[in-house]
Amino acid sequence: MIDFGTLLGNVRAGKPLVHCITNYVTVNDCANVLLACGGSPIMSDDPDEVEEITAVCGGLTINIGTLNRHTVPSMLRAGKRANELGHPVLLDPVGAGASRLRTETAERLMRELRFTAVRGNLSERRALAQGAHDTKGVDADAAARTSADLDGVLALAGAFAKRTGAVVAVTGATDVVTDGTRGCVIANGHELMSRVTGTGCMLSAMTAAYLTANPGRAFEAVCAAVIAMGVCGELAFARMGPLDGSAAYRGYLIDAVFNLTARQLEEGARYEMR
Amino acid sequence: MIDFGTLLGNVRAGKPLVHCITNYVTVNDCANVLLACGGSPIMSDDPDEVEEITAVCGGLTINIGTLNRHTVPSMLRAGKRANELGHPVLLDPVGAGASRLRTETAERLMRELRFTAVRGNLSERRALAQGAHDTKGVDADAAARTSADLDGVLALAGAFAKRTGAVVAVTGATDVVTDGTRGCVIANGHELMSRVTGTGCMLSAMTAAYLTANPGRAFEAVCAAVIAMGVCGELAFARMGPLDGSAAYRGYLIDAVFNLTARQLEEGARYEMR
Amino acid sequence: MIDFGTLLGNVRAGKPLVHCITNYVTVNDCANVLLACGGSPIMSDDPDEVEEITAVCGGLTINIGTLNRHTVPSMLRAGKRANELGHPVLLDPVGAGASRLRTETAERLMRELRFTAVRGNLSERRALAQGAHDTKGVDADAAARTSADLDGVLALAGAFAKRTGAVVAVTGATDVVTDGTRGCVIANGHELMSRVTGTGCMLSAMTAAYLTANPGRAFEAVCAAVIAMGVCGELAFARMGPLDGSAAYRGYLIDAVFNLTARQLEEGARYEMR
Repeated sequence: MIDFGTLLGNVRAGKPLVHCITNYVTVNDCANVLLACGGSPIMSDDPDEVEEITAVCGGLTINIGTLNRHTVPSMLRAGKRANELGHPVLLDPVGAGASRLRTETAERLMRELRFTAVRGNLSERRALAQGAHDTKGVDADAAARTSADLDGVLALAGAFAKRTGAVVAVTGATDVVTDGTRGCVIANGHELMSRVTGTGCMLSAMTAAYLTANPGRAFEAVCAAVIAMGVCGELAFARMGPLDGSAAYRGYLIDAVFNLTARQLEEGARYEMR
Repeated sequence: MIDFGTLLGNVRAGKPLVHCITNYVTVNDCANVLLACGGSPIMSDDPDEVEEITAVCGGLTINIGTLNRHTVPSMLRAGKRANELGHPVLLDPVGAGASRLRTETAERLMRELRFTAVRGNLSERRALAQGAHDTKGVDADAAARTSADLDGVLALAGAFAKRTGAVVAVTGATDVVTDGTRGCVIANGHELMSRVTGTGCMLSAMTAAYLTANPGRAFEAVCAAVIAMGVCGELAFARMGPLDGSAAYRGYLIDAVFNLTARQLEEGARYEMR
Repeated sequence: MIDFGTLLGNVRAGKPLVHCITNYVTVNDCANVLLACGGSPIMSDDPDEVEEITAVCGGLTINIGTLNRHTVPSMLRAGKRANELGHPVLLDPVGAGASRLRTETAERLMRELRFTAVRGNLSERRALAQGAHDTKGVDADAAARTSADLDGVLALAGAFAKRTGAVVAVTGATDVVTDGTRGCVIANGHELMSRVTGTGCMLSAMTAAYLTANPGRAFEAVCAAVIAMGVCGELAFARMGPLDGSAAYRGYLIDAVFNLTARQLEEGARYEMR
């Protein structure tokens, strides 16, 4: 059993500063969720400053949503500097498979940088693992949301993790985290999370904070972050009133991240090690 | 009488995927309102990927707020591909008339692409129709908000619609939708909508979803979307408590879009066909 | 004693239109806070249009968060045009000190433009005043949040104000505003403001609105805006329920700006002239 409360406590105590190179759709949510979980964000993507910025941070997250080819050199520079400094680096390959630019950029980043963790949905993971171009938008496709092919997902993600050295998180209705040796299947979360833009991006940013505050425990840190977001998704749903909709839900989700206690996290966690 | 409930139901059932090339101010709201109404968003503006992205979507919205000259080629490429594929394409000429760049870009887009619909305020519409440069900011000017010159607006918009083949929506205190033959004057909405940034952009994004889910019914789809947003603006106002302000109102508005029923839409609609 | 109620009333009556060249993280919040306080925003940063855009506005705010070297020429063009027109211009040197690009850009802007006001945290101020590169992220560092070194801050800010002709606001746990002759030390605000991204950016945007609506009273206008935001931070905290967190707080803060009365502002102000 993983001591999730300790991992959460380390984020609160360590106030990890996370450098985010991310998309302009959900960037504000990423900043706010980092502050809510106990970390601190710096968004910066100009090639002239990313190395300096990442050096004053503890971790880095690279998110390729609204990818712009001019930002790719910034991603590479920041990633290399973070690698040199031994900072954890996370990749969120948003929309890999949806365009050649995104798939090839994700592949190039994977080739030229060492990632501590990669978090995406199944379509994105498939695109990265197989070069397949079958993404339907930036949301997890429906097929990936049943647990029927869960073993297949674990096998795919595990092989990818072994090959790349990154902890792999594949999120959807059921989430899978694996480092190639250990696997964790997570049942937390709520379907309303898919009706708010950026819950995946927020999870990636928060995961970077967990990785930064828990050095040497990458697999556990990713599990903790994924479970924490899922538990918060459930806590948020519990607050929904009759007139509330997706906007209220978004607020409740971030509020739950802000207020999450070690006890809520540990008692709410629904996962299975495989 | 238009079957607004059916048009709304088609959005919920069809889950239209809408490609948005839009400004960085309200992009998050556009994504969230698309999810709230039942659609799904992809934001993408790199010229290297927009054709692929738009091809996997059902519709496209082009919004020139925070216009950047580097994005214009992306707008043209995506628009041409969407035209080839027969996807509905909507233009929101934010701030046309406020700068030469915006007016000329809007004109160029109108010249080189076929738009299914164009939605803007009266200043923007005038700038497009007459080449006039008289926009005061990005908000509808006060003169356009009285119903005194409503007939003039209808005539102007109708001529523009006939010339371009696009359904034209001019929104303000009173909204007008016309395809050059039919006209619809809409009295829904609430003045608080003008105290939240992006309600116009959100309406444009949502209109693209309605167009995508209701092929061959462009005029009705635009009417339905404009009325739906107006009804939601009224429902949102009804939730306002004494300490609530524009931030609460924004949340209530998106919540109302999320929860809107066919019955609320049909019973709340206040419009007149001309 | 400053007539804060009058200054607030001038914003509400004048509806100042503020041109914002700002970062993509908090741009939506800046637009919404401008609308909430009674002003109106236009975001625009393309070099081809910024001069036209700033000419139709009453004031300009330049914020270097997520600085991009391509935007620097836009900042200079807009600033020069605003200077020619006698519009108030505010600089928010977000992250100055955190990278050479940001520090040098802030210095260049200070050199080539005349600023009516500069608002930042102590790290940024130090970087600008001394060329020091010691910023820890984009948040005020802890040391700056005690009032122990308040006299030092006043002296530093006052010298900078005298040298540059700008009213200087250094915000943190305690805020300082000075024009080099008069000084105002402000105790309003709440620590939760530092758990929401963009409260500093929002304050800068709102300060530009106060400056625009109160010509010839720059020092008083900046004091009023800083106090107004602090009072709203306190009003927002008073609304917090047991499940509320940073997302609710953000909404309450903007709601408080929307609803702020002259009486709340004057009775809530906690400041000392030095």
